[in-house]
Amino acid sequence: MRATLIYGAGDIRVEDVPDPQVQEPTDAVVRVLRTCICGSDLWPYGSRPATEEGDRIGHEFLGVVEDLGTDVTGLKAGDITVAPFAYADNTCQFCAEGLQTSCPKGGYWATNGVDGGQGEAVRVPWAQGTLVKLPVDEDTPLLPSLLTLSDVFCTGHHCAVTAGVGPRTTVAVVGDGAVGLSAVLAAKRLGAERIILMGRHKARTDLGRDFGATDVVPERGAEGIERARELTGGEGTHTVLECVGTEPALETAFGIVRDGGTVSRVGVPQYEKGPVGPQVFSRNITLTGGVAPARAYIEELLPDVLDGTVEPGRVFDRTIGLDGVPDGYRAMADREALKVFIQP
Amino acid sequence: MRATLIYGAGDIRVEDVPDPQVQEPTDAVVRVLRTCICGSDLWPYGSRPATEEGDRIGHEFLGVVEDLGTDVTGLKAGDITVAPFAYADNTCQFCAEGLQTSCPKGGYWATNGVDGGQGEAVRVPWAQGTLVKLPVDEDTPLLPSLLTLSDVFCTGHHCAVTAGVGPRTTVAVVGDGAVGLSAVLAAKRLGAERIILMGRHKARTDLGRDFGATDVVPERGAEGIERARELTGGEGTHTVLECVGTEPALETAFGIVRDGGTVSRVGVPQYEKGPVGPQVFSRNITLTGGVAPARAYIEELLPDVLDGTVEPGRVFDRTIGLDGVPDGYRAMADREALKVFIQP
Repeated sequence: MRATLIYGAGDIRVEDVPDPQVQEPTDAVVRVLRTCICGSDLWPYGSRPATEEGDRIGHEFLGVVEDLGTDVTGLKAGDITVAPFAYADNTCQFCAEGLQTSCPKGGYWATNGVDGGQGEAVRVPWAQGTLVKLPVDEDTPLLPSLLTLSDVFCTGHHCAVTAGVGPRTTVAVVGDGAVGLSAVLAAKRLGAERIILMGRHKARTDLGRDFGATDVVPERGAEGIERARELTGGEGTHTVLECVGTEPALETAFGIVRDGGTVSRVGVPQYEKGPVGPQVFSRNITLTGGVAPARAYIEELLPDVLDGTVEPGRVFDRTIGLDGVPDGYRAMADREALKVFIQP
Repeated sequence: MRATLIYGAGDIRVEDVPDPQVQEPTDAVVRVLRTCICGSDLWPYGSRPATEEGDRIGHEFLGVVEDLGTDVTGLKAGDITVAPFAYADNTCQFCAEGLQTSCPKGGYWATNGVDGGQGEAVRVPWAQGTLVKLPVDEDTPLLPSLLTLSDVFCTGHHCAVTAGVGPRTTVAVVGDGAVGLSAVLAAKRLGAERIILMGRHKARTDLGRDFGATDVVPERGAEGIERARELTGGEGTHTVLECVGTEPALETAFGIVRDGGTVSRVGVPQYEKGPVGPQVFSRNITLTGGVAPARAYIEELLPDVLDGTVEPGRVFDRTIGLDGVPDGYRAMADREALKVFIQP
């Protein structure tokens, strides 16, 4: 089959690789119907050292079950399923608590010999725990929104949930990428009435307004913080959803949040140490969030996707085939495309 | 009157200063019955640059109301009161939410011309909001425990509350100082059944056991983390109460905490940046806590102090007069004394 590999910064190739096969009785093989490129894929695209062999890449996909190990129940060949961006057994104590990203048997796609999502098929470890069956046909127009359950919509939701967003909380969202916009949508869905989106790309912030943002602040840094605080009577917002992952974004989040409030982050930190010193301490700011256990949220969010209450798939603004993946990375890195949808 | 001043690292003096007087109609003047030295006083004692004039110091006291401004109601001369370590109007939105440390009219003792607590008397701004009347006589043996409502017991309680400690949470406490031991007591009071105290000073950890610690880990660093994790089947504790304030203590806390768990810190951070990078993110660890709004907790904790359910005053292991304050600082800095009680 064909799959995407990364050979180093800026070097994405689509190549022939061995067809995936069931290796363990708990495995399944899924033929990928749709996959996509994630903002977090841009970090290795921007900086990974060159390698001879290349590494598989991609962690968001939905597809059709083609083969199943003997221990997998509840799924059958032909089922359409979505996979969260981390696989997990979904039976251990961490999974039971909704923290499938800490499942001792779990792991991430495209690491340790596991297939990446940006290919024609994937061997799925712990398939029974990992895959969620979708009650749709292959040709449903809902595929883009359903694919966001693999990562971005669940990630935005995780950010809002861990921040404690509800009807009485004011929210600021740092970042107008697909995760930031998903966080806006999730905050709106959880009842937030005031959602300030920090972003300067009009096409993106317009979608953010459609998703529920009540205010858009294009300024950055100290100016952006001041403007966001002005919008809240100088106090700042109860919660800030940090959807970028850089240290300046975290600083902005701490600058905007109200005393006693919560900054939740879901952007993969591009820093080892963060600005959590005396200022954050003296204002009783909580820092929460983390890598989203998407699996924990799929069943909860699925009905709203199926009935069209939310349309998180609107974050996709370009559709390509597998051959177009290298250019899709380039387009996202150049901010030509918000999020690229792939039909292998 | 006489009061304590700090002239620089290691240079504590007790000197004559002007008697405090009511300056604003919202002020009171309180004659100090008991005050004490805080672990956080040891930070300036260890490092403050020398000054010509000296600065007042001390932020924990209880005493008798001597004079009142015309706007103060609910208090009268002769009342015995305790003051939290931050004054506040207790009427604003932040105070109403229990975050008196962020009261726009509030502030800290011994700053901006406000008296310090380690003296014979104190002018109390926003007295009606700040002071809590105690239903005791001057000669009650409860004064040590009542004084801990000014800071350490409320601070330990804040740490446990913000961490979410309850009957089903396992707890580790980093630090065997007065705040750490208070955090043990608070966690026990909130129902925690498993409390691991990280500390190596036997007199202190023995008191910790009396306060409710079920396990004591004397090892530090990686060894201490490993030992604490062993005690919890390798998983770590749901909550870690970080009661020191140094970066190594925070690293230890992140090392001990279970995935998905919470580190709450109440030791004043001696760092500008902390280790909140990808490791903490990938494990969904929450960092919370901050400077304790002691005022928010006094009424809640007072009954248990009055009826002897808790005896937080046991953290005091030395009693001195005002003349003994310089030596009291030295004794605490040398770890000869756990916490020094002062009868001015």
